[in-house]
Amino acid sequence: MRKLCTLMDSILSRRAGLAGADSDCSALVRTPEAEASFCAIHAATRAHPVHLEIENSAVPGSYFLGKCVVKDSVLCLSDLRGDELKCAGAGGITRDETIHVQGSYLVNTLVHANSHDPGNPSEFTIRDSIALHYSNIHGAPVERCLLKPFATLDLTTGIDSTIGTFSYVNTGRLQNESVGDGRIWMAGKDFELKYSFHPDVLRRYINLDTGDVGGIFVDFLRARQSDFREVFSGKTLPRPCNPGSYANPYAVLKGECALGDRAFVAQRAYLENARLGDGANVQENCYIIDSVLEGNNVSAHGSKLICVHEEKNVFVGFNAFLRGAWGKALRVGEGCIVAPHTIIDLDEAVEIPAQHLVWGFIRNGKDLEANSVALDDLAKVTGKVEKGALSFSGNGGSFVHGFQHRVEHILEGNGALCTGDRHHGHAQTYCDVVFNVLHPISGGEGKGMLPSITIRG
Amino acid sequence: MRKLCTLMDSILSRRAGLAGADSDCSALVRTPEAEASFCAIHAATRAHPVHLEIENSAVPGSYFLGKCVVKDSVLCLSDLRGDELKCAGAGGITRDETIHVQGSYLVNTLVHANSHDPGNPSEFTIRDSIALHYSNIHGAPVERCLLKPFATLDLTTGIDSTIGTFSYVNTGRLQNESVGDGRIWMAGKDFELKYSFHPDVLRRYINLDTGDVGGIFVDFLRARQSDFREVFSGKTLPRPCNPGSYANPYAVLKGECALGDRAFVAQRAYLENARLGDGANVQENCYIIDSVLEGNNVSAHGSKLICVHEEKNVFVGFNAFLRGAWGKALRVGEGCIVAPHTIIDLDEAVEIPAQHLVWGFIRNGKDLEANSVALDDLAKVTGKVEKGALSFSGNGGSFVHGFQHRVEHILEGNGALCTGDRHHGHAQTYCDVVFNVLHPISGGEGKGMLPSITIRG
Repeated sequence: MRKLCTLMDSILSRRAGLAGADSDCSALVRTPEAEASFCAIHAATRAHPVHLEIENSAVPGSYFLGKCVVKDSVLCLSDLRGDELKCAGAGGITRDETIHVQGSYLVNTLVHANSHDPGNPSEFTIRDSIALHYSNIHGAPVERCLLKPFATLDLTTGIDSTIGTFSYVNTGRLQNESVGDGRIWMAGKDFELKYSFHPDVLRRYINLDTGDVGGIFVDFLRARQSDFREVFSGKTLPRPCNPGSYANPYAVLKGECALGDRAFVAQRAYLENARLGDGANVQENCYIIDSVLEGNNVSAHGSKLICVHEEKNVFVGFNAFLRGAWGKALRVGEGCIVAPHTIIDLDEAVEIPAQHLVWGFIRNGKDLEANSVALDDLAKVTGKVEKGALSFSGNGGSFVHGFQHRVEHILEGNGALCTGDRHHGHAQTYCDVVFNVLHPISGGEGKGMLPSITIRG
Repeated sequence: MRKLCTLMDSILSRRAGLAGADSDCSALVRTPEAEASFCAIHAATRAHPVHLEIENSAVPGSYFLGKCVVKDSVLCLSDLRGDELKCAGAGGITRDETIHVQGSYLVNTLVHANSHDPGNPSEFTIRDSIALHYSNIHGAPVERCLLKPFATLDLTTGIDSTIGTFSYVNTGRLQNESVGDGRIWMAGKDFELKYSFHPDVLRRYINLDTGDVGGIFVDFLRARQSDFREVFSGKTLPRPCNPGSYANPYAVLKGECALGDRAFVAQRAYLENARLGDGANVQENCYIIDSVLEGNNVSAHGSKLICVHEEKNVFVGFNAFLRGAWGKALRVGEGCIVAPHTIIDLDEAVEIPAQHLVWGFIRNGKDLEANSVALDDLAKVTGKVEKGALSFSGNGGSFVHGFQHRVEHILEGNGALCTGDRHHGHAQTYCDVVFNVLHPISGGEGKGMLPSITIRG
């Protein structure tokens, strides 16, 4: 596998900083040897342009949808979901939007580019960057960045920046910044919201002490890894999709699962004894175990629910981890917003009242009291408030209504609001999906590299 | 599926003659609607160049191996097996050999190009041609030809010619000729061999009377068609290959089957209660049912054995049909050659003595007596002989030894003669094969067309 090793060297050489400031991550940037034989999946539907170009790259176990171009990169067990990109002609734009990945290394990373500027084609380039385990790149370009494990860059252009482990940034733009570990940071035109995790708490859930990713999150994921390895080995069959709802065959459904109308389950989601009400959606790398989602729930990329009962219209942000247990269940009231990267890991039963925002690290009712606020109260804020781990400043109404608007947009995009011919979303447009299965070179110098592939509809 | 219909029209318009002289076939040239959703399979091994280009074409249910380029063509349930093509560098040649299909329509057709000129790259082009159900194009270019159902063009360049139903031509070159139905014609430098079927016999086995292909052969194949439809639907899984031998996962194995060392079973072969001895090979569209092949047997493309016991080193030619039954089995002696397109359909048990050539239409011992000759006797012929349906003229030794040499070459090519590191053939080189699965466009104007695809190793 000389070619793959050379490619890895070439990617790393463009990230010379990594060996210094980011030395705790350098051990995580590895040539994917064990995964070298995994096939890649290219999903094609009638609703999305069939366009895939992969050149001088290894993409074992990865999944592509929409217009994607990958060059000189290693994408291991990653997802590129360009299903919300605009096509030439839409809104008068003159060229298709495309996810371009160039000179980058992504491992277990979700890239979901959705298009926001109605009049102009956006650029979704990931260049000379490294995104590590269970990181998310959502909706904006990234150049010369390092995303540490479980980091999320959401609607934020990242340039020459480092995002710490389990940090979440949604600030529109980030340049020459180094965001520490466990920091959650959202900023809009007229507000800013921040909270962070105590290093000891963070270390319990994710740590890089041993030169590998460890901790509760990783143990949880590793225990379920073999289900996905089987799905992406090409040795098992995709399941057919349900009429009325859509569960991607490259998701795992175990135990007793039920899906309501217009429910949507993305590839690489994991459901075990999960009941999804009408219009509920579960995105990539989500785990829904022994849980009920009553309807129109959003489980954003990488969020995990164990023994959770969600009433309707609950939003759970990227990489949030919500774990109850039998006898100490978590109930989340209608219309609640669980901030991205929140950890709720219960010692006792907890019920979050309806229409609340929660954040931070919560183990019991007392923590919840400290780390939650009624959305109505937050909407009245006009200055600076601090509560529990949270620091908020600016226009609370702008934050609350903006967030609720985004949730509505996500529900529409996923098909939850479909009424016959109107408001089609993923749950409807995926129903004619087919999967091209693409194998890497199986031996010799090229082992693990994908042949150069072009598929154009 | 407007694009596919337009493509069909464009292919047919280049075959203007079809409506006149070939009107009995025009109904058979149909837009593949029922098959439009079948996926195509691209096999890749370390031993063969990974190179596939498909443009403006529909290839439902088709299978590709080796360097293949397909443009402006419809290939329905067909096989392109370029695994014996030479690569640039081999024997000093300067460019890869490639199967090129352009402006053609192939249905259930096997194209197997093997390379014969050691010093020069051969051209394997199929251009502006139509090859119908269960026809074979083997090892040479074909331009502006019509191959009717079950026709075989073997090592013969065909230009502006028509090959009749169930006819076999191996004459090196054919230009501006119309070969009638049921005619078998081999010619070498210093010999010529011919036989033909009575029209009534032929009509029983294949007829086009109803505007479709009918008759015993077709009934036999249709009864087993659903097994293959399942394999190529993408809804079932390829089986793993056997160590020591190789059975392609896109073959069907039913009942009790056993494969000896170095046995080779190609894609789209069908085995049911079949025992293959060491080094036996079974090629595309072969059916081996309730039969035993003792070892180093060759079952050429499209041959069928039902209740047959073959001793060692038996060769059965293209599209031959050998059918015994319980209580009236057929036994074929060691080293026999069953001529291409022979029909042995028994009313009583028959035993072909070792080292004989058989041909024509045989139902019993009397027919066998008329339509067989000891290879030793044939090798002594130097003039013209007629026996049963056969007419032979020229150097019998040249024919017999040439044929035996070809059989040896086929055994070597299929890996039957492999001894450790030497004489590797298909049974060995396929063991690391992987299968890219490629889906046609599922709806709209492009329905049934494959997206433009390029895969280069």
